[in-house]
Amino acid sequence: MKLAVLGTGMVGRAHAEKLAQLKHDVMIGTRDVKKSLGESKPDMMGNPPFGEWKKSHANIRLGTFSEAAKHGEIVINALKGEASVSTLQSLKSELRGKTILDISNPLDFSKGMPPSLFVCNTDSLAEQIQRAVPQSHVVKTLNTMNAFLQVNPNMLENGNHTAFVSGNDSNAKTKVTQMLKEWYGWKDVIDLGDISTARAAEMLLPLWVRLWSSTQNANFNIKVVQEKKL
Amino acid sequence: MKLAVLGTGMVGRAHAEKLAQLKHDVMIGTRDVKKSLGESKPDMMGNPPFGEWKKSHANIRLGTFSEAAKHGEIVINALKGEASVSTLQSLKSELRGKTILDISNPLDFSKGMPPSLFVCNTDSLAEQIQRAVPQSHVVKTLNTMNAFLQVNPNMLENGNHTAFVSGNDSNAKTKVTQMLKEWYGWKDVIDLGDISTARAAEMLLPLWVRLWSSTQNANFNIKVVQEKKL
Repeated sequence: MKLAVLGTGMVGRAHAEKLAQLKHDVMIGTRDVKKSLGESKPDMMGNPPFGEWKKSHANIRLGTFSEAAKHGEIVINALKGEASVSTLQSLKSELRGKTILDISNPLDFSKGMPPSLFVCNTDSLAEQIQRAVPQSHVVKTLNTMNAFLQVNPNMLENGNHTAFVSGNDSNAKTKVTQMLKEWYGWKDVIDLGDISTARAAEMLLPLWVRLWSSTQNANFNIKVVQEKKL
Repeated sequence: MKLAVLGTGMVGRAHAEKLAQLKHDVMIGTRDVKKSLGESKPDMMGNPPFGEWKKSHANIRLGTFSEAAKHGEIVINALKGEASVSTLQSLKSELRGKTILDISNPLDFSKGMPPSLFVCNTDSLAEQIQRAVPQSHVVKTLNTMNAFLQVNPNMLENGNHTAFVSGNDSNAKTKVTQMLKEWYGWKDVIDLGDISTARAAEMLLPLWVRLWSSTQNANFNIKVVQEKKL
């Protein structure tokens, strides 16, 4: 399938790599192709410069945001939270009718660590995005665990933990849920409801950040433990 | 041990009953003793009137907020979120030097269902309470699951799920953690850090509410799934 990933950070790279391994036709979209390829320093998380990473992933295409958004039948939003709404809004026509798998988080680092959220409680980043691209189908998912677990859930406890999906369009949610299960290996995917339920998923981030800082290990997730259905 | 429970709702009742079963000397505190005993209608959740419940729990004392706060060596705050700060502030002298086990949630039902939070993100109800009673030791815990699971975690999946504690005073946190483990049977109690980490625990409520509404069964909790330590 033709798939697009917006964003060149570790989340975008993890998805592009995984999907290319599965023989999909993947294009990463970036604001400035030349600048992305020319990066020469590791990012603030210590990830190698994008150009270097790209050399060892020759089977993954690189294009502008617009080229990638046109290319993908499903478009993965792996942009930083603060860039997501404006960037996706600028791609409104390319994204028309498409499913957007939104992983972004509204993290606000401007007041120091730990980050707070720049939108929460009575609204969410996913809802802001959905309002910015009303003719696309936004499905919020995978924003609640690190990039490696997002695409390889079985790396942790044989996959015995939970992913959530939120979205207004049930076909798009079904498509994303299948992608999570069949391509990435997720076993437990809970449909929280319409896109407003992304508030709940995004408001998990403060817990994620605190657990990360207390355990110094990002390889964790939460599992919803429920009574076995009879 | 002499223990106090502030609040006559289902959370307060569950803790008082459990602690009395364990042979502790428990006093429930309420705003107006006569009024609480005189209630004749079930509450909005369908719980029996308090006076009726109290008759079958003769071993549990009932007093004013002030009498209960004086009585308890540890004081459990099971009040509604919106009443918590003002009530605890009015008990400042009775609560001086004591550990307050705070279960309250900042739920705002004023804008309809599902509730939002009246404080979150850059502050929390637990922090508001701690500021209101600076000479007491507030430990936020057990606000992330229903009352029955709070005091009987083994009712669900043999207790294989998580409780969190947040607080500034490590002795108070140790005391509360022991109480959770030895009296209630909790196996997995994670110390998130200082009282500001209660933001993370309180911001789990939107997820709780959405899961409750999608499963129609309040008997669930989350488990933090981590790599086994080597």
